[in-house]
Amino acid sequence: MSAFSDAACGCPVGSIGEDLPAPSKALYPPAGERRRIDGLLTEELLDAVARTESGPTVPDFDREKFEAGLKAFDFASPKRLEDVLMWTIEQMLHGIVHVNHPRYFGLFNPAPAFPAQCADRIAAAFNPQLASAVTSPAATAIEAHTIAAVAKRAGLPPQTSGHFTSGGSEANYTAVICALTQSCAGYSEAGARAFSGAPAFYVSRESHLAWVKIAHQAGIGRSAVRLIGTDGGGRMDPQLLAQAIRSDRESGHIPFMIAATAGTTNAGAIDPLTECAAIARAEGLWYHIDAAWGGAAIASARLRPLLAGIELADSVTIDAHKWFAATMGCGMFLTAQPAILPAAFHVSASYMPPRGAMPDPYVNSAQWSRRFSGLRLFLSLAAGGWDAYARHVEKSVALAAYLAGKLKQSGWTVVNEPSLAVLCALPPAGKNDVRSIVTNVLASGRAWVSAANFEGREVLRACVTHGETTEEDVDELVYALEAAQALAQ
Amino acid sequence: MSAFSDAACGCPVGSIGEDLPAPSKALYPPAGERRRIDGLLTEELLDAVARTESGPTVPDFDREKFEAGLKAFDFASPKRLEDVLMWTIEQMLHGIVHVNHPRYFGLFNPAPAFPAQCADRIAAAFNPQLASAVTSPAATAIEAHTIAAVAKRAGLPPQTSGHFTSGGSEANYTAVICALTQSCAGYSEAGARAFSGAPAFYVSRESHLAWVKIAHQAGIGRSAVRLIGTDGGGRMDPQLLAQAIRSDRESGHIPFMIAATAGTTNAGAIDPLTECAAIARAEGLWYHIDAAWGGAAIASARLRPLLAGIELADSVTIDAHKWFAATMGCGMFLTAQPAILPAAFHVSASYMPPRGAMPDPYVNSAQWSRRFSGLRLFLSLAAGGWDAYARHVEKSVALAAYLAGKLKQSGWTVVNEPSLAVLCALPPAGKNDVRSIVTNVLASGRAWVSAANFEGREVLRACVTHGETTEEDVDELVYALEAAQALAQ
Repeated sequence: MSAFSDAACGCPVGSIGEDLPAPSKALYPPAGERRRIDGLLTEELLDAVARTESGPTVPDFDREKFEAGLKAFDFASPKRLEDVLMWTIEQMLHGIVHVNHPRYFGLFNPAPAFPAQCADRIAAAFNPQLASAVTSPAATAIEAHTIAAVAKRAGLPPQTSGHFTSGGSEANYTAVICALTQSCAGYSEAGARAFSGAPAFYVSRESHLAWVKIAHQAGIGRSAVRLIGTDGGGRMDPQLLAQAIRSDRESGHIPFMIAATAGTTNAGAIDPLTECAAIARAEGLWYHIDAAWGGAAIASARLRPLLAGIELADSVTIDAHKWFAATMGCGMFLTAQPAILPAAFHVSASYMPPRGAMPDPYVNSAQWSRRFSGLRLFLSLAAGGWDAYARHVEKSVALAAYLAGKLKQSGWTVVNEPSLAVLCALPPAGKNDVRSIVTNVLASGRAWVSAANFEGREVLRACVTHGETTEEDVDELVYALEAAQALAQ
Repeated sequence: MSAFSDAACGCPVGSIGEDLPAPSKALYPPAGERRRIDGLLTEELLDAVARTESGPTVPDFDREKFEAGLKAFDFASPKRLEDVLMWTIEQMLHGIVHVNHPRYFGLFNPAPAFPAQCADRIAAAFNPQLASAVTSPAATAIEAHTIAAVAKRAGLPPQTSGHFTSGGSEANYTAVICALTQSCAGYSEAGARAFSGAPAFYVSRESHLAWVKIAHQAGIGRSAVRLIGTDGGGRMDPQLLAQAIRSDRESGHIPFMIAATAGTTNAGAIDPLTECAAIARAEGLWYHIDAAWGGAAIASARLRPLLAGIELADSVTIDAHKWFAATMGCGMFLTAQPAILPAAFHVSASYMPPRGAMPDPYVNSAQWSRRFSGLRLFLSLAAGGWDAYARHVEKSVALAAYLAGKLKQSGWTVVNEPSLAVLCALPPAGKNDVRSIVTNVLASGRAWVSAANFEGREVLRACVTHGETTEEDVDELVYALEAAQALAQ
């Protein structure tokens, strides 16, 4: 072993042998310890999640105590993993909004489906690298199979391709890159400067405003986003859309994409997908549909008609980590123009394994090294079938309708058409403002709702996001709202 | 409940009551079933990972059998979760390269540390939304604490801020967006067209070529990437760098960033960080360091000097999912210019919770909804302390040096200075080409190595990535290489 004191190797650690550091048992504990800790986590997580259901929906967060605890983690010396895990679970119990609470009527953050949690364990244990199909043939094929099933269920054409993303922002961003690459031959090499005028794309003013960040990130600038007026019900107005495109062309701008929303964040509204498709076709624009949340309605034969027109899209965003109840970090990008993906993301690197028969994710998507995130949706679909998701989304929609009825009885005015599971409402006349009511509900810890701005008005926003929410939970929300109004008087 | 047949609600699901769908037990099984399945996973995953160590490093993949099995998942009807999990684990055993194998001398995909796997379970169970600090105060604070500790260990200034990313590509991409936003007041609103000439940035020709994709995605085009020549040892040549900047300025291009690499993929080479910093300073350019893999050397007092100059960077990429052995999907972006993050990523959306005292990740980073990925590094650091990682990286480096010595004894020529844990070597004179040797090693299943192109030559590339690799594993690799050479004659 003295060979390794060979100075020519340039190694500052020098020789090994008696002084080769032992593998860290903290990072790589023996099997028995792993078994024990995993068993402990099983019990503690079950217990913790059960406790959240009977506790408040909002964090009862003692920041001072938390900060003191956190400060103790200076990483100067090892701590028992078990203690660190128990501390962390305790902070999760008190320091986050509980999406596992059946009265979390919140943003689209789901109570995670159990098969998706199992997928996280398998992906973490084997840690496959999803950059390369040659390296991870089974994992990439399972993802491709899942994407194909979703595309088929959405009615997209058979050639549709796609991939899993970190979330809706990356998927919508991918749509912009694909649309720019498609619309201008010079974009790939020379960027936005290759366009003969400033590029522009069209979304409704009720769309998810990540679009503004995305335009910045794509090098076309925030001013490229056209926020098209809506029809009073949260849906893009096709006439205003057509006008905006005309006006942009007249002033030398370069329209390149229409992005309709199927399930707005504020109100669950669905843009007129077919009319928008016709305008995109007539104008020669890329047609994207952001169905990040609403896309899960494809699971239900009864709800699927609401998404009519989705099959006309050049690309679609659907997040598995929203209404499909996967754990966070699981979006999807689908495109009916699969040739655009290698055009947008191709690259050649000598150290990557030679290409095989299956397309490699790293030359067809924005990420390079990537987690096996698609397994989450695969396992949930495999365990439940489409039928489990059909019942899941139908139940949400039915409960939102139930809530609408209860709110009306309680004097509220429902201002959107809750065709999906988001409801926007105005308080009874003479009652205090929405933000005060929301603040009081959150302070009570009895439910989680939010204030939002829908069609220019401040409204109460409530979404049925948890698969186990009951009518009794909805009743309790209504009682909490009544109490909150009384307090806000 | 007849109230809910109220047609005014616009709900196509109609009334509920007796026909409210039950929550899907497949998606939300009862606690007893979760306990049973989690226990099963604990045993099966332990067993599977143990089995990989005695099996081949490469997939012994029967594609036909796999495809037939996969095809059966048409999601038309539910399947027992247990069966689906067992099928999946079986496919992982045979259908991916095994990074858990101690003779995986591969790309930077780590054998995942156990605390990181525990973090994945906790993040999956509570599923916190990392977009908002108000929604998830404990989770965002734990991430911020971890980022601050890494920044401090790297010697970055106290104001350094940052966040977790999906990986190195997103972090490097974030650097480009920050640098563009900083260098041109009009970029945010008008994009790349606001520059008075075509923007350009500088990386070495041995850098990770995700830069080319990133330039496309950032709207400045692939031609914005300048691949600067190297010094024969895989390091950017500062003279060529300065020349390229001069020449670009003369021709009307707009230099905006230098991105040095600290630990190239091919060879683990570290660009001259201090010289590059001086050039960036003199030229008024953003200075980024891509230490996606090599950055973990900050853990070791003995290796840290190799990264001297990292403290001068405006921004740094370090992937926790490389040498820090976190599970996939865990990168980091750090910046000593924290004001640039809200400048690049600000946005306002009425439905988001009101801003609190802590910065919200969604207005300071590219993603919006995000997983609690930073917990993985936090738990590993908490359980092991910096010392566990110091020993982890020192052991890798020592074993790489040991391998260098063994290869030399076996007639190979080591062509890089393996100052970190990647080794590039040429076979003994008269022996067959590298790709044939690599193919034969992979076919033997005894180890995983790859071919790469280093400084214009095809070389064998071997990296010590697994924390439990031993000298005997290195010996076995050398025997496997000798057998592979004999076969390739």
